[in-house]
Amino acid sequence: MQAVPQSVIFDTDPGIDDAMALYVLARHPAIRLRAITTVFGNAAVATTTRNALALAALYELELPVAAGAAGPLRPRQDQAFPAHVHGEDGLGGVGALVPAPRREVDGRPAHELICAMVNAEPGQITLVAVGPLTNLALALRHDPGIAAKVRQVVVMGGAFGTHGHGGNVSPVAEANIINDPEAADAVFAAAWPVVIVGLDVTQEVVMKHDDLAALKGRGGKQGAVGDFLWAATRHYQDFYHERDGIGGIYSHDASAAVYVAAPEAFGLRAGPVRVVLDGIARGQTIQDHQGLAAPDSPWAHSPAQQVCVRVDAARVLSEFTRLFD
Amino acid sequence: MQAVPQSVIFDTDPGIDDAMALYVLARHPAIRLRAITTVFGNAAVATTTRNALALAALYELELPVAAGAAGPLRPRQDQAFPAHVHGEDGLGGVGALVPAPRREVDGRPAHELICAMVNAEPGQITLVAVGPLTNLALALRHDPGIAAKVRQVVVMGGAFGTHGHGGNVSPVAEANIINDPEAADAVFAAAWPVVIVGLDVTQEVVMKHDDLAALKGRGGKQGAVGDFLWAATRHYQDFYHERDGIGGIYSHDASAAVYVAAPEAFGLRAGPVRVVLDGIARGQTIQDHQGLAAPDSPWAHSPAQQVCVRVDAARVLSEFTRLFD
Repeated sequence: MQAVPQSVIFDTDPGIDDAMALYVLARHPAIRLRAITTVFGNAAVATTTRNALALAALYELELPVAAGAAGPLRPRQDQAFPAHVHGEDGLGGVGALVPAPRREVDGRPAHELICAMVNAEPGQITLVAVGPLTNLALALRHDPGIAAKVRQVVVMGGAFGTHGHGGNVSPVAEANIINDPEAADAVFAAAWPVVIVGLDVTQEVVMKHDDLAALKGRGGKQGAVGDFLWAATRHYQDFYHERDGIGGIYSHDASAAVYVAAPEAFGLRAGPVRVVLDGIARGQTIQDHQGLAAPDSPWAHSPAQQVCVRVDAARVLSEFTRLFD
Repeated sequence: MQAVPQSVIFDTDPGIDDAMALYVLARHPAIRLRAITTVFGNAAVATTTRNALALAALYELELPVAAGAAGPLRPRQDQAFPAHVHGEDGLGGVGALVPAPRREVDGRPAHELICAMVNAEPGQITLVAVGPLTNLALALRHDPGIAAKVRQVVVMGGAFGTHGHGGNVSPVAEANIINDPEAADAVFAAAWPVVIVGLDVTQEVVMKHDDLAALKGRGGKQGAVGDFLWAATRHYQDFYHERDGIGGIYSHDASAAVYVAAPEAFGLRAGPVRVVLDGIARGQTIQDHQGLAAPDSPWAHSPAQQVCVRVDAARVLSEFTRLFD
């Protein structure tokens, strides 16, 4: 018996691993992708929106794509984008390999599209957010009532220090969270069920050079998806290999997408999660998983959320690669 | 060939595990204990000083005991002491089992004694600090030149999140560090070699109920030391067993003392260490062990220090128990 596919809105800043995650959400039989919303992060929002539209065309998706936030809730003067990881075009310098967008961007801002779809189908929609959490925080501000109507929120972000993985921007801060700590703190504090797929598990899943090479000529028309992902990951792989010597890549966002389809591949830890907003630890995610905090502590009034602390890496990889068969 | 014993000043807030650490420093053949300095922490400094004098008598030590700081560098209104862990008397309610002090407290404040001894024997003195780091920070302020003259500083404190161990006061903060974060940050930033023995390793070393029972009637005159430690750890064991279900205790401070004698039992990780001073993560210790921090980061101008991230627990326990033979 096949379960009913889970309806998903994908909030994303493509981004190379975003492109891989989008393929999972587009093709996995357990998932029904309903909309894409874009946000700044791996590149400027104009770039990530263009990339989302182009990837939707490559993956032959007919769904709304709405543009979201251009910057974080607390504006910063020194906004920069990680071209050294994702390339100037956000797609590893090979954005020219994807087709021209087939459709226009949706007329609504991302957070309004999210609120409208969630309100139209209470209890049905899963939000998968793999960039800064600005759009989700704006949606909560726009209509706090959506928290009770979202099925679950799956976030790629954060680092909780298990398995020896710290942050990837500061020693404790992960990129998506430090790009908008105030938004992340609001999203984790809201009364909807959040599952956080952070570096603790995404850095335990390595797609090796040979795994990526095997995608060539597979997926999409004439294997165009695999050809694109192989090309797009060349620079990205060099970055991670130089940093960590892993002979491959972490596809952070794809791990979050796989969580939606195969949650049994992950081990969870429950407890309220707060984000550090100031000082040297800004952007750090902290979970009180021991119930240690006193009644007056910063964790005392936040709902228990779930943090992924274990992962069956082989299972995650197979959930991804089987979509190219 | 026997190596020359390492000269140690022990900065402590006894405290039950402090009492165990003091026994290690007093009896281990690789160590020559030269002085004790006291600080607030597990109890008020008047109590920890009285306890240090009494323990010196129990262990038959002839050395100066100097009283130190009564509170942290940044004064706090709500100073409290963990009687639920160490008892009202700081010794598990059995302080009456230790003999009356044999000598008076030294006339100098702790930080002046530290500076005087270090300056008298440059390159020779190891500081072992197992309470809040206030005395060491005051010594650095009093005479910054001592940093270049100390052999090494071994600190019990902090939590770096490896092995799943978070803080023991907040989700990220360990008690000694959160008791004086400003002092700890100064001590870790100074140009002396620091080795941090934090919860990452001290909570990997469990002295089981039977290990403690086996101390009875052993150590000191007529086995008085073992009898005392068994009695003193009854309440402390209940606390840890109730919290973590470990069927024994963590002797945090004894692990730091054993580090001095048997550093090969520990695995180290190098990198600058900063302490979070504000916000919800106050008291957290953060090491940039990946060299991740940018040139303008808070870690950029701090020296590399060593954090213990692995431990041979059986070896640590045997280094302790062999001192009762």
